[in-house]
This record gives sequence, C-alpha cells and structure tokens, in this order.
Amino acid sequence: MTIQIPKGTRDFYPEDQRIQNHIFDTWRKACLRFAYEEYEGPMFEHLELYTGKSGDEIVKQLYNFVDKGGREIALRPEMTPTLARLVIQRGGSLRKPFKWFSIPRLFRYERAQKGRLREFFQLNMDIVGSDSVFAEADLLVAICAMLCDFGLQASDFVIGVSSRKLLAAFLTELQAPDASAVYPVLDRREKIPAEVFQAELAQAGLGAEQIAKLDAFMSCKAIAEVDTCVQSPESRAALQELQDLFAILNSANVGASVQLDLSVVRGLAYYTGIVFEVFDCGHSMRAVAGGGRYDSLTERLGGQKVPCVGFGMGDVVLADLLADRGLLPKSGPVLDFYLVTFGGNMVKLFEVAAELRALGFSCSHGLSPAKVAKQMEAANIAGAKRVVFVDGDKAAPGEFEYKNLVDGTQGVATLTQIAREARP
Amino acid sequence: MTIQIPKGTRDFYPEDQRIQNHIFDTWRKACLRFAYEEYEGPMFEHLELYTGKSGDEIVKQLYNFVDKGGREIALRPEMTPTLARLVIQRGGSLRKPFKWFSIPRLFRYERAQKGRLREFFQLNMDIVGSDSVFAEADLLVAICAMLCDFGLQASDFVIGVSSRKLLAAFLTELQAPDASAVYPVLDRREKIPAEVFQAELAQAGLGAEQIAKLDAFMSCKAIAEVDTCVQSPESRAALQELQDLFAILNSANVGASVQLDLSVVRGLAYYTGIVFEVFDCGHSMRAVAGGGRYDSLTERLGGQKVPCVGFGMGDVVLADLLADRGLLPKSGPVLDFYLVTFGGNMVKLFEVAAELRALGFSCSHGLSPAKVAKQMEAANIAGAKRVVFVDGDKAAPGEFEYKNLVDGTQGVATLTQIAREARP
Repeated sequence: MTIQIPKGTRDFYPEDQRIQNHIFDTWRKACLRFAYEEYEGPMFEHLELYTGKSGDEIVKQLYNFVDKGGREIALRPEMTPTLARLVIQRGGSLRKPFKWFSIPRLFRYERAQKGRLREFFQLNMDIVGSDSVFAEADLLVAICAMLCDFGLQASDFVIGVSSRKLLAAFLTELQAPDASAVYPVLDRREKIPAEVFQAELAQAGLGAEQIAKLDAFMSCKAIAEVDTCVQSPESRAALQELQDLFAILNSANVGASVQLDLSVVRGLAYYTGIVFEVFDCGHSMRAVAGGGRYDSLTERLGGQKVPCVGFGMGDVVLADLLADRGLLPKSGPVLDFYLVTFGGNMVKLFEVAAELRALGFSCSHGLSPAKVAKQMEAANIAGAKRVVFVDGDKAAPGEFEYKNLVDGTQGVATLTQIAREARP
Repeated sequence: MTIQIPKGTRDFYPEDQRIQNHIFDTWRKACLRFAYEEYEGPMFEHLELYTGKSGDEIVKQLYNFVDKGGREIALRPEMTPTLARLVIQRGGSLRKPFKWFSIPRLFRYERAQKGRLREFFQLNMDIVGSDSVFAEADLLVAICAMLCDFGLQASDFVIGVSSRKLLAAFLTELQAPDASAVYPVLDRREKIPAEVFQAELAQAGLGAEQIAKLDAFMSCKAIAEVDTCVQSPESRAALQELQDLFAILNSANVGASVQLDLSVVRGLAYYTGIVFEVFDCGHSMRAVAGGGRYDSLTERLGGQKVPCVGFGMGDVVLADLLADRGLLPKSGPVLDFYLVTFGGNMVKLFEVAAELRALGFSCSHGLSPAKVAKQMEAANIAGAKRVVFVDGDKAAPGEFEYKNLVDGTQGVATLTQIAREARP
C-alpha cells in the first residue's frame, strides 16, 4: 500500500506541466498586453476574511483549520478577499484606478467532478478604484483577446452579461420581500425545471403575480425587451449602463461574443453591479470564467469604500474546452544540444556542456558511460535538435563532429561555428 | 480593526512580485539550460507522506489538519516526498535517469525570523535513477551557473560538500553505538561551543577517545587530511567518491566555489551519500541551498529502491543575499503604448488599443474622461515608452499624433508606421 494523492488534487508530470505552463504563459502575456500588473498573496488567510463577507456556499466549502498557534486559518477559496485586504492595507497610498492580475492556486472542499477539483488555479484580473463602465469593458475585451490567444474562435464562446443593480432595482419594483433569498433561486434557474423554480420563488416570499413578472423579466434576451418590463429610474439607469457597455464592446470589435443573459446572477454575495459569465457555445460545460462589479467589499471588510470590478478564469474548465477543440499543445521537451561521447569521456561532456550553456544554449548529456546508440536514443527522447560528439576521431583539435537531428546534416566544425549555426 | 495578513507569510504587491518573477524566471531558465523538466504536485499531501520518513524536526513544523472528510492532511513542508510519490506511482514506466525541477510553495510552522518564513518558495532540482557521482556534479554545476545568472560572482558564495556515507563509515570505524543520535549533534557543531559539542556527543554514547577522533575528523579541511583519519574500505570508497566529484567540478570550471566541509550533515534523515550546502561567503546568512543523495526514500515509502539526488534553494535567503549585493532588479512596469484622448473620446481609445494589442504590443489608456495632463502623468507612471493621441487635430484621417517618451521625439504617422518604429 503506497501513499495516494489527496482526492480532488492533481499531479503534474512534465507532460502535464507543459500544458499548465502554456495556460499560465498565455494568461500572463494577455494580462501584460492589457497593462495589468501581477500581484500575489499568502496561500491561506485568517478565516474571518472569508466568513465576514461571503455567501454561505463558499464557507461550507472551505479548507479551514486551527494552526499550532491557535489561529483560525483557511486555505484561500478565491483571491478577491485577499485583493481587498491588500487594497485596505495600503489605503490611499495606492494610486487608483489600477489594473492588477494574479494566478492564484485556490482550494475548495467540494465533491470532485468534471470541471471541479478541490485544488485548482485561477486567473484573476481586477480593476480597483474605477466606477466607470469602461472598466467592465476593459476586462471583457481582455477575456475575448485572451481566449483568441488560446486559438479559440469568437464562435467557440459566449459571454453572458447581466446586472445585479438591474436585478435589485427590478426586485424593488416588484416589492419582493427579501432580495437576498431570491438571488440563489435565480442563479439556479437554468438548471432546474420551471415548476421547481416557481415553487422556490414562492418559498422566498413571492406571490404568483410577482413570480410571473420576474419570470418574464428573466426571459428577456435583449435590452429592448427588458425596457418594456422595467419602470423605476433605478432600473432604467442600470439598463442604460448595460446598453453603454454593449456599445463600447461593439466598438472594440467583440460585440459578437457578448450577449444579455439575465440568468447570470453569480453565487457570491458581494456583487453590486454588472456581472458576467463566459461559457463554451452550447453551454455544455461549466463556466470558463465569471465576475462582475463589487463596490462594497473593502467597506464590508473594514476599509474605505472602493469601487472594484474583476473576474476569475479557472484552469480546469478552460483546459477541458481547449482539449475538446484540439487546442492544447502536444509538443514534447525541446533541447538545443545533446552531447555524445564515443569513448566514455565523461569529463569532456561536462567541459563542452559548460561552454555551450555559457553561450545560452540548453544542453544535456548522459550521467554515466553508455553505448553510443543509447546516447543517441536519449538525445531523441530529450527533443535535441543537434548532437555534438565530444571525442570524435574525425575532428581536429578544437573541432567537433556534429549532427543536426532535424534535417539530418552532419559535419565537423569548431564549437563557435556550431553555435553560430544553431542561433535562431 | 481590519483583518491582518497571517504571521510569517507575505503579500506581493506588484513591485514585490516583479522581484519574485525575476527569481522564478532566472531559476527556470537555468533549469531548462541544464535540460531539467518542470513538474508540480498538490499543495497538500496525506500526513503520512511526511511522518513516514522525516526526522522529528520537520513533523513538529507541519501545518497539518483533518479535512472535512476526516483525512489527515499536511501542507507540504518540502517537495521531495511528493517527488518520491510521483516516482513510485509511475514505477517502471518512467524512463530513468531523468532530471526534473519544480518551484513549489512550501509551509513550515516555525518561529518567523530573518531568512525563515512560514510560507516560502523553493527551487527543487532532482536527478532520479542515477547512482553515478556525475549526477551530483550536474546539480552542483547548475547551482554555480544559476547563481552567476543572478549576477553573483564565484567569490560571493561557497558550496560545502560532505558525505553521509563517509560519516556513517567513520562512525562504524569508531564503533559509535547509535549513529542516528550523533548526526543532529554534528549538524549543530558550528553553532555551539566546543564543550557543549563534546558533552552532547558523550550523551549520544561516545567515549572520550571516540569524541577526540570524531572531532579531529570533523576538523579536516581537505581530502588528504581525511585520508589520514579513516581506515575501513567503506570509508575509503566514500572518500574516493568525494575526490572524484571534486575532479569533475574542477574540469567543469566550478572547483573554486566548492570545498570539503564535513560539518555539512543536513537535518533530514533520508540522505544516504554526498550532501552539500550553499552559503554566502562569510557564512553570515542561513544556507542559500542544500541537498544531497537520498537513495532509499522511495523504498521507505513503499516503492522500489531508486537512487536519487537533489537540492532545494529557497527564495527568502537568496533574495536577502541578492539585495545585500545590490542585485535585485529595481525596474518599474514597462508599457509599449499609452493612449491619450484630447476630446474624451473613450470609444476611440478602445478601438486603437485593440489594433495595437492585435499587433502584439502592450497598451493602456484611461477608463474615464480626464484632462490631458492627468493622462500624460498616468502614461509616465505606467512606464509607457510611447504615447499615441487618438484624436489629435494635427493628424489627417488614418493618422495619429504620437510622442516618444524615451527620446522626446514626436510626429504624425499611421498606426502601421508607428508600430513599425516601435518594434524592438
């Protein structure tokens, strides 16, 4: 009986890690292109950072424990509370607005299933200190650009956009008794039968007429349709904000990937404005990304009020989607040089390797004497582009026999000449 | 009262994260140059992965807890047990020897102090499946190369090398009753007064003559000196191995950074052969790196016996050393383009930004209308090399006014021309 990997976590052997690095690199490059700066925080926080503000759902899913000093600690289930803590800590000395990103490792104790693990990575992009809808636009444009960087087409994904502000204003219009009891029901609307949906709304305190109106509202597929359902100035202002956002996104050429989707509610309690979720076309998987505006989180956590908007994009569903579309890289390792010795001259391998590495090349060789065929096999497995024979008898002093494994050419030359030819 | 960061952990604001990324990038590039492949594992493991094999010290320092499913879990305090689990899991299907690296985040509940935090990063490089001393050489050459990549000189650090095998053989020669009780005392030799050292050895069961001989042995500074202290074939074989290693390292041109240091014992119980520690010259800080050969770990954990050798290099002491030598990067953010609007034409900012980003440039702009001076200030803070004015009245249709913030030049041109000039 050997020791197993903990349930819901992953090992990354080199072939898996190459895929992870592809995802991280693509995320990071897109963030830098959009001028977001990277930050990080601790892997765990004081438990109260999460219990202070989250909805119930996330607290039940925490990996929490008491440390040896008696502190209540939780592995971070999301990055936003840490970001809020960083913002509160520095207060006014942080020049706002700013655009930050992070690629945290996150932990949720939940049933491990397709697209959900207990440990995963998530890209977070956030804009802190702007209450302008251009901030939402910046994030959504970045999402579209980065999904295209992965090789996805605009037709592969759709971003559903809604507004908590609109929803709240409409629920006020409806005179719903307790909006916070209604949100979780709306969030499940797509996943449950219509009669269950209506029963749960009734349980949340809504009457038949309210339910009918809410259902009609939630079915709207376009701004113009919503316009006929809402009446209060607050509702109209929130709707106008959505309309402005769509106009900007059209100008930025990503309008085709974005659509009004009032069923997007988001589970977390802290959202206050526009919210959005990214799905594969056909909604066959869980959300690839989700986020929105949360203008009161820093205040709830004891700081000044700072308007914020951001999203998270997990690695698990994204990798599933890329795999489904054949967009995950399949390449093995790549190596500039593999060194081979005919005569078991191990020390010479180290000498030549040091020279090639000093020139910036990647280089490998065997670690104990082996037959030439075995060394050539190792060169191929390592993905070597070139082999240099460190003690070939056709080479004059200061020269080396070499073979190009990509095009099959071979020859004899000085290391300087061989290196010059190997420059990209 | 706002919520604090957990004790012994760090926040990485963008200026801190830039330094972390410099360290990670330098590590990663060196590993790839030496043809090590990256892997990763879960952030926590079943507790027994650590209690099964470690010395007492590390178990006392674990962040361990019972998860909601009743499992005994520990945040990983080191990477080697995870590596051993990966090796055991794949068994014979992994082609050996192989060279792997990882940059895990690790956790130890210990008193936070200079050079020691409760949460830190560590580069791990390991060679699995080779019992040849050329494996040790490959790792030590890589350490020297990577420290030089950071800008350190060979005179800035020293690698002390010893051998558990030699020590064990010599203790057998001495007929020491319990070698495992002696190792921790030897490990402390440099930190405690001579009389305390001798008293602790006596407590470990050694007589006066044994203590004198062991002290003389531990004082040896060169292979030739050790040669006069040891007698058994096992001792001589272990000494020969050290001698072979030093010869290879001389050939590889790193001999000057390496010296025999029998006081290097390493705290962990699983080392079986050559061990080493990297210090700043003058030993004014904790070890920058440490490692050695551990040939029986996979066997102890229930797998086949697989010879392994590796080391860990933490980010905390390394960053302290680099800071001390003035070798940490001081650069702020860098941006290719910042877009400015004279007339509050926000949508135009998004249009031009999309074009420049599609060409691969990094690009930013304001998220709400602002005075031009304010926008130019933001451009400077963002580290922009160039500003493009999206609605300047000196520009013909299809052209843009621009300003180079590096050399102060300005002009009017098409985006294609501006982009061409901005190519590195």
